[in-house]
Order: sequence, then C-alpha cells, then structure tokens
Amino acid sequence: ARHIDWSPLMAEKGGYRHFMLKEIHEQPRAVRDTIAGRLLEDSGDVHLGDLNFNDQQLSRIRRIVIVACGTSWHAALLGKFYLEGRCRIPVEVDIASEFRYRDPVIDGSTLMMVISQSGETADTLAALREAKSRGAMAMAICNVVDSSIAREAGNVIYTHAGPEIGVASTKAFVTQLTALYLFTIRLGRSIGSIDAETGKAMLASLKRVPSLLEEVLKLNGCTEKIARKYMNARDFLYLGRGKNYPIALEGALKLKEISYIHAEGYPAGEMKHGPIALIDEDMPVVVLAPRNSAFEKTLSNMEEVIARSGRVIALCSAGDDEVSGRAEDVIQIPRLDEDMDPLLLSVPLQLLAYHVAVLKGTDVDQPRNLAKSVTVE
Amino acid sequence: ARHIDWSPLMAEKGGYRHFMLKEIHEQPRAVRDTIAGRLLEDSGDVHLGDLNFNDQQLSRIRRIVIVACGTSWHAALLGKFYLEGRCRIPVEVDIASEFRYRDPVIDGSTLMMVISQSGETADTLAALREAKSRGAMAMAICNVVDSSIAREAGNVIYTHAGPEIGVASTKAFVTQLTALYLFTIRLGRSIGSIDAETGKAMLASLKRVPSLLEEVLKLNGCTEKIARKYMNARDFLYLGRGKNYPIALEGALKLKEISYIHAEGYPAGEMKHGPIALIDEDMPVVVLAPRNSAFEKTLSNMEEVIARSGRVIALCSAGDDEVSGRAEDVIQIPRLDEDMDPLLLSVPLQLLAYHVAVLKGTDVDQPRNLAKSVTVE
Repeated sequence: ARHIDWSPLMAEKGGYRHFMLKEIHEQPRAVRDTIAGRLLEDSGDVHLGDLNFNDQQLSRIRRIVIVACGTSWHAALLGKFYLEGRCRIPVEVDIASEFRYRDPVIDGSTLMMVISQSGETADTLAALREAKSRGAMAMAICNVVDSSIAREAGNVIYTHAGPEIGVASTKAFVTQLTALYLFTIRLGRSIGSIDAETGKAMLASLKRVPSLLEEVLKLNGCTEKIARKYMNARDFLYLGRGKNYPIALEGALKLKEISYIHAEGYPAGEMKHGPIALIDEDMPVVVLAPRNSAFEKTLSNMEEVIARSGRVIALCSAGDDEVSGRAEDVIQIPRLDEDMDPLLLSVPLQLLAYHVAVLKGTDVDQPRNLAKSVTVE
Repeated sequence: ARHIDWSPLMAEKGGYRHFMLKEIHEQPRAVRDTIAGRLLEDSGDVHLGDLNFNDQQLSRIRRIVIVACGTSWHAALLGKFYLEGRCRIPVEVDIASEFRYRDPVIDGSTLMMVISQSGETADTLAALREAKSRGAMAMAICNVVDSSIAREAGNVIYTHAGPEIGVASTKAFVTQLTALYLFTIRLGRSIGSIDAETGKAMLASLKRVPSLLEEVLKLNGCTEKIARKYMNARDFLYLGRGKNYPIALEGALKLKEISYIHAEGYPAGEMKHGPIALIDEDMPVVVLAPRNSAFEKTLSNMEEVIARSGRVIALCSAGDDEVSGRAEDVIQIPRLDEDMDPLLLSVPLQLLAYHVAVLKGTDVDQPRNLAKSVTVE
C-alpha cells in the first residue's frame, strides 16, 4: 500500500508543501478580495469604507510621508511613484526605525501613512504616534483588522489578504500595492488630479490583475528550473528602474530571508557607481526589464552586466525577443501597463526565492533569526 | 646596492603606495581648505562666495531636493539630517538615474541641490536640467571648478579637496559633508532657524575636525590588522542608525568597489526585518556605535548580531568600555559631537577597505569595471 503523508498541518496548507507557496498562490484571490466592493466604475473612483477623510481634508494635504519596515517599506517606495505621478503631491518614504529618531519635519498639512501587515510592528507604531503628536493627518494600510496600528491611525485601508503565516511576506505585499493604488485613485479623484476617464482606465487595469496573476503563477515550473541552476550562487544582484526598483529590492529581500544568499537590490542606473565592480562570471543578476518608459536604459544596463560576464536572468514582457535573445535565462510576464507591472513581476521573484530555499533545504516558512511580526524595537 | 624603486608616478603619489592612500591622508588638509576663508566667527555664520542667493531668496525655500549618484548620494543622505534638523525644511534625497525619470514634483519654492565630485556626472547633470526646466532654484556642490554642473547650476559650493585620482572617492566625500554643513549654517542663519550662538558652536565643532582627522589617521595600523583578519570574508554587513547610516552605506560601497567583496549597508533597525537571516559565524558585521542619541538602540542591534554568532567590528567613541567589551574588534574614534561623528567615522572605513583590497591584491586605484567620473547615462 502507498503511504499517504497527510496531516492536519498539510490541510491548513491547502495541500501545498509550505505556507509560503500556498500564500503565493492565493495572490489572485487576495487582490480580488482587496478590490472587491471598492470600485465605483461609473465615476472612475473608489470607495474606501474605513477611510474617513472628506474631500476638504484631502485637499489640505501638501506632503505625504509613508513610513514602514521591511517588505512594507518596499510597497511604500512604489506608493511614492503612484501618488507623485498621479496626484502631484511630494511623497517622502522612510524606514520606521530611522524616521522616529530623525526629528522629522511634520505639520498639519502632512499626511502620515504607515504600512504594516500585522499592524503591530513596534517601530512603525512608534513612528505613527510621533507623527500624530506633531499634528499630522494619519492613515494606515494593514492586513490585520483592529490591530494596534489600525486602531491608532483611525483611518485605514485594510488589505484583504487573509492570514499570512509564512514569515516571508508575499500576498500581503501585493495587496499593499493594490491598496496604495486604490488610495491614489481616491486622492486623485478627490483633488481633481485624476479625471473620471483616467480613473476608469486605472480601475480597468487593476481589475485585470487577478487573472493575470493566475497566468504568472504558471511560471512556477520555469522559475524552479532557474532556481536549480543558480541555487549554489553565493550572491545575487537584482536590478530595476523606476517603479520596478522597489520590486528589485523586494525580490532580493525574499532570497535573503529564506535562502540566506546575500542578494542585494539596486537601481539599475547606480550599477556603474560601484556595484558593477562585483560582477563576474559567478554573479547571477536578475534584471527587471518589462517594456516601459525606462526600457531602453534598462536594456543598456543589462548589456553592461553581460559585457562583464555576469549571468543575466531577465524578467521581460511576453514576446520580447530583444531581451530574450540576450539574457541567459528569461521569465516573460503578460503585458498590462507600467503601473501594474510591479505586481506581476513580484510573483516570479517570490517563486524564485521559494524554489532556491527549498532546494537548499532551509526552513522556508520559519527562516532562522526572523519573526513574522516584529513587535520589539 | 639596494635597488630604489622610485618613479615620477610615486612622486605624484607623495610617497604613498596608491593615490587612494594619499588621498585618505589628505583629508585633514582638504577639510581645512574647504572651510578656509568661509567662517564668519563673530556672527556664527558662513560666507560662500559662489552662492549668490540673497536672504529673500533663501526664505522662499519650502522644500529641498538633493540629487546625486554613488558616494555623493551618501553625502546627500547625511545632508538631509543636517538641513532638516537645523533648518526645519523637508528634504528629499534621490538617486540621479532615478530622479530624472520619475516625473518629479518640483516648483519655484523647491531648492534643487546636486552633488558631484567631477561636476560632469551625466545623470546628475540631466537631473539638474530637469529641475531647472521646472522652475526650481538650483545649486551644486562640486570639486572641479568650472565643470558642467557647476556652470549650469550657477550657484556652487566648491569643495577644496584638490584633484582626486583614486576611483574610490575619499577626500571628496568628506569635503562634501563639510560643504553640506556650511550650507546648513548659512541657510539656518539666513532664515533664522539657527541663532548666532548655535552658529558659533557649529563653527567651533567644524574647526576641530581637521586635527581630529589627523588623530583618526593614526588608526591606519589598527585597521590593517583587522583587514588581515577578515580579508577572506565573502560578505560584510555595515550597520548604522541616523546620521551614521549613510556612513554605513559609504563604508560598504568602498569595500565593494575596491575589494570586490559583497558588502551591504543597512539601517541597524531594519536588520530584524530580513538581513539578520544572513548572519552566521562567517559574517563580519561593522557596527557604527559612537555615543549619541541612538547609542542604546544601536548597542541592542549589536547584541542581536552577537547572539547569532556574527563577528562584530565596532566603531565607537574613545574610551567606550561598554562597546569594547562586547565586540570582537574595536576601532575607537575621538569624541566630538553627533553632527561631526560621521566625518570621523568615514576614515577608518576607508582604511579598512583600502587594506583589504591591498591584501587581496586588487587594483586599488583603478578597480575593475569602474570609471572615475561617470559621464555616460
């Protein structure tokens, strides 16, 4: 008789080998749930039930400060692009453990936004309190309902990712990006920087994300093959420009966290100011090169890496022969638009980190030294 | 007869084995020259001859954006602390290759400051033009007189570092920090956020830096010993908080550039959000822990590293037994104040990178893949 290895824990994992893999696969559903009931398609606007700012309050915002830690900080970095690009308000992003000791410049026209999956991150909570005590308007993006940060912020956008068990955040990250995009639409519609037509187009893009994430999940086998090839690398670089730079940082962090490989993310244009000295035939370099306004420059950075014998794993748009013909390994993602590419790119990077870690035999769901929610300072 | 290996090139190097070592040793002189003739000690103010903003113009500044690449970007990150802390104006720091493609929010009340040693850095020049075209006030910190960036900015603070030949920037960096501090005093005195007494105290601190840099250079032998011990490490982490976080980034970049070791700088408080997973007995961790307002928190981060068997090289204040008793290796720097510590800390980190590179036998002054001045985009 065949032995069936089944346990209550495996049931919890929905048949997946690890929570992380389960949560990666839940992302289409998580994004769908995060936008469900919030889109006002007739007016190209968004309804956010736990965000109580009225139009007059939103019109007072002169500056936005987004503060977070770890993966949530990477989400914040992309949020800066969304908000500055669409709402034309300056956005500053800071790391919570830095912000709170910085004696920050904050006043009543500053919107302080904090991002935390658990809503209990100690440094982020302290940063929120600091900003509130200086008179800032406050809001949070959290996954856990009624968490400390959600309660103290008062105004919240909940991500509907569902419980995240794996220490390395996956579905929480992608839903944070979704929440940031929803808030961008709401703010832009309120202050008039986004008109109804543009709002409708943004909603239409966002609505396509869940099914495209399902497409992207089919890259599982392809990323496993790449993971097998590079699993013994000691170092990795991840390069991106613009909206994809935060995704490069996040991809590198995933690999660090669960495979203990020293991976580092860099804005591709900074390579030549130092890190390019690291590149030799032992260095795999992940290049995020979807078709967008930074494409040509990114391609030229990729060429620089190849010229120095670096081994390029390129993530590009479906059918992009220009990239595919030059990189050693290629992962193609569906074409959507520049705002949404970062969400689609996140998934293969999560899968790559996951497979490297599994092949190396590390404890994927509970990596050494790390806690799921950092409630100490 | 003993063969004397002497050449015109060695003469140029002033008897030092490499330009980099010569330039490291020129730092006391470089800082002295950068402040010479600029201090108005009676009024606690500063005279900057090539900066033509009058008080009325300076009072119009509502936001400062500092843009740079590589080492100059690290200087900019410290500049944010100086300017926000003393002038209470929000400062945003960006990487030039990112900024220029960002569609940045800039207007006539924005001061755009660019920093470039050569004054010819292509991305930085493009960023300056972009900001000027959007109506920003502009200024530059440059080392090379009459360079493209200096000319196009119109307003300049020249660093008087003298020609820098080594590709890895050393004296240019420390004089950039000096220039940022001078500008902070000028702006603060002009808008009234710094009173005469405070201005005088700041000048007094700054004036002490050159002779303390001479003290710090005596750490040459001690850093060489540490370099010998860790030269075969594959990876390094550099940790700092607040004003010393940019110095951690810069220390890591130096090691990357000339020794090809994968070194990474991190804000110490972010460790527990990911990078701490990397730490084991093979990982040297440089911790910047001088006595300042972040000292206790930094010490606790150092303890976390030790608890996970990381090998700590601590930089601390002279006579600090609390740090010295716990770290595996210790470098003590003279006590001055929180604003000036970053300048003093920079030097042993330059020396550490230098000695590791020399021991590994790399081409210190002309590391692989790197150019002194990056005039391509």
